[in-house]
Amino acid sequence: MTDSPTPSPLELASRLIACPSVTPARGAVFDALEAMLKPLGFNVLRTIDGDAPSGPVENLLAVRPGPEGTRHFAFAGHLDVVPAGDGWTSDPFTPEVRGEMLHGRGAVDMKSQIAAMVAAAARIPAEAGTISFIITGDEEGPARFGTLALMEHMAARDVVPDLCLVGEPTSVARLGDMMKIGRRGSVNIWLEVHGNEGHVAYPHLADNPIPRLVAMLAELDALELDDGTDWFQPSNLEITDLEVGNPATNVIPAAARARLSIRFNDLHTGAQLSARVTEIAERHGGTARPVISGEPFLTEPGAFSALLAEAIRAETGLEPELSTGGGTSDARFLKSICPVIEFGPCNATMHKRDEAIALPDLDALVRIYERAARAALALQESFARDSR
Amino acid sequence: MTDSPTPSPLELASRLIACPSVTPARGAVFDALEAMLKPLGFNVLRTIDGDAPSGPVENLLAVRPGPEGTRHFAFAGHLDVVPAGDGWTSDPFTPEVRGEMLHGRGAVDMKSQIAAMVAAAARIPAEAGTISFIITGDEEGPARFGTLALMEHMAARDVVPDLCLVGEPTSVARLGDMMKIGRRGSVNIWLEVHGNEGHVAYPHLADNPIPRLVAMLAELDALELDDGTDWFQPSNLEITDLEVGNPATNVIPAAARARLSIRFNDLHTGAQLSARVTEIAERHGGTARPVISGEPFLTEPGAFSALLAEAIRAETGLEPELSTGGGTSDARFLKSICPVIEFGPCNATMHKRDEAIALPDLDALVRIYERAARAALALQESFARDSR
Repeated sequence: MTDSPTPSPLELASRLIACPSVTPARGAVFDALEAMLKPLGFNVLRTIDGDAPSGPVENLLAVRPGPEGTRHFAFAGHLDVVPAGDGWTSDPFTPEVRGEMLHGRGAVDMKSQIAAMVAAAARIPAEAGTISFIITGDEEGPARFGTLALMEHMAARDVVPDLCLVGEPTSVARLGDMMKIGRRGSVNIWLEVHGNEGHVAYPHLADNPIPRLVAMLAELDALELDDGTDWFQPSNLEITDLEVGNPATNVIPAAARARLSIRFNDLHTGAQLSARVTEIAERHGGTARPVISGEPFLTEPGAFSALLAEAIRAETGLEPELSTGGGTSDARFLKSICPVIEFGPCNATMHKRDEAIALPDLDALVRIYERAARAALALQESFARDSR
Repeated sequence: MTDSPTPSPLELASRLIACPSVTPARGAVFDALEAMLKPLGFNVLRTIDGDAPSGPVENLLAVRPGPEGTRHFAFAGHLDVVPAGDGWTSDPFTPEVRGEMLHGRGAVDMKSQIAAMVAAAARIPAEAGTISFIITGDEEGPARFGTLALMEHMAARDVVPDLCLVGEPTSVARLGDMMKIGRRGSVNIWLEVHGNEGHVAYPHLADNPIPRLVAMLAELDALELDDGTDWFQPSNLEITDLEVGNPATNVIPAAARARLSIRFNDLHTGAQLSARVTEIAERHGGTARPVISGEPFLTEPGAFSALLAEAIRAETGLEPELSTGGGTSDARFLKSICPVIEFGPCNATMHKRDEAIALPDLDALVRIYERAARAALALQESFARDSR
């Protein structure tokens, strides 16, 4: 037997899409990735982390060590996908090329990117530096035992990248038009006001909680959290639910509830915003129960964003926008290890039926990831850690 | 066979309580009342009015005509009762005297009063004037085909009382401490605001209806409808329900709903208040759907309240308060025929388990109703009709 050359990015992506891996991903799709990485010289650690209800979760850490004193560049991503849903033109878990497009669940979120990362790593000699893969099976789900668990395994083994590229689909209209240098944080807060039930004809014998909730919500809705920063849009609060559940037209209810969601930039922390909303809720005679789902992260523009932009420019001719918009990603966790940036293909079909990636974009992505990794491994300066 | 004397008020009340007549009342309880009234010279009309879902309803109109040119005094009330519920000491539909109290569902709301009206009528000679009974089987239910239908039958037969006494239980601590010369009106209004669903991370692509509803409710809650009148407490608005029903923490909902209830005095009509709330709702981008359940009524203090107060004073020694508080009653309908006042026993056990009336109060009630009817039939002045 002789070493066969690494398969094409299309072949690699198709192998991953062919494994149905609706979140949480398990087994076969990790077997497929392991089989791609081992021939390239990667040491592969596979773990099962956590217990019900948010676990167990399957994760994979692969490291190809470079020579002593060289840099360490990490590729990060996830092998789980959201459910397929109905209405697909072809089977969502049978990769199919129609025209210039590769179709299948995970084609842009984000099995094609993992395939591109593998193909990129295959083109970089081990002497250039250490390359690692931080791959979880639970990013689309609760994400409690996914990348967070991988980070514990990394810490226990002293695996510390200098820079990390997450392959989320960040491009909008054309491959290369946007990368994400940060994401907002997110907190959901449940609000409740209690009173005393009674008959509407005798309001002096009752205590209606709804006016207090309405006044509380009016004050919360009027909050100006900030005007945005150089890199973030203004933080935003949305009231997402109201609930009393009183079927009787002549009854003053005993309790009233609401829920809100705040997406916030790095001028705040989840704890600070929770305290601020709690103070307002309590001043109106209510209570607040916050659940923080993610803190914001920001990798300030610098050498990392510059080398990535240069790689994107070289392959696409586009100057990528440095964005911090949209939802959360696992970069919110990885930011505590090293500077992290997200870049990947167009996200128009993400989470939708007939999810697909353009084949020229898949090939360009391999070249961009290769350029970026080579440039990162060649950098001389050191990077500040975000220790928040 | 000879005419037997009219049975005692206790006997009459017991016969009515013994007929289970949970709203809507039908059959036996009307048979019992008809059997009491016919021997007293009353012409009895029994009708079945209305269709599902608010009908059919059984009603009874009894008239004993006085000589040409004499006055017409009407007793009004209802034979239906609210459901018994649990926890009774004795069977709710088996009248039982324990100590000084007659127990049974309807003992104060309001079969005892109808018995007392019958006993009072038996003591008044036909020569004194016309006496009528306006008795419905649906006051505790939708009341759409009850007293309103009786009023149509009365109009068709040219039966027009000069004054009307409704026997609702208006006393509070002691028999005679309160009569009702009016009641507030009532309107329930359903509010709705529509927007566009979307993801909380992309609020510019959605349109959250909740802030508009909150602002609308804050304005409505701050409304000062009036300061009350000589006879009415201030009108009052209560928000009674909120509803969005959005289980997803990361979704901006498409619609938000609320409901409010206004109890209002005779400075307003249901239509005026509905228009006012609708204007506010529409200004905040929402809609309002009002359902008026009753207009206010007021029988201004004068000869009628004076003669009733005199009768109460003579039998109880108490000076009755002239109140307009509490919920609605069928007086809201009867007010369009003639001046109407409500008076009856203590309402402490109304709609509760072990509903009961004190036997001395039952006897006093007969004497009060008799005095009031005789005085009303002897009045010389004419009365203004409330034509609203």
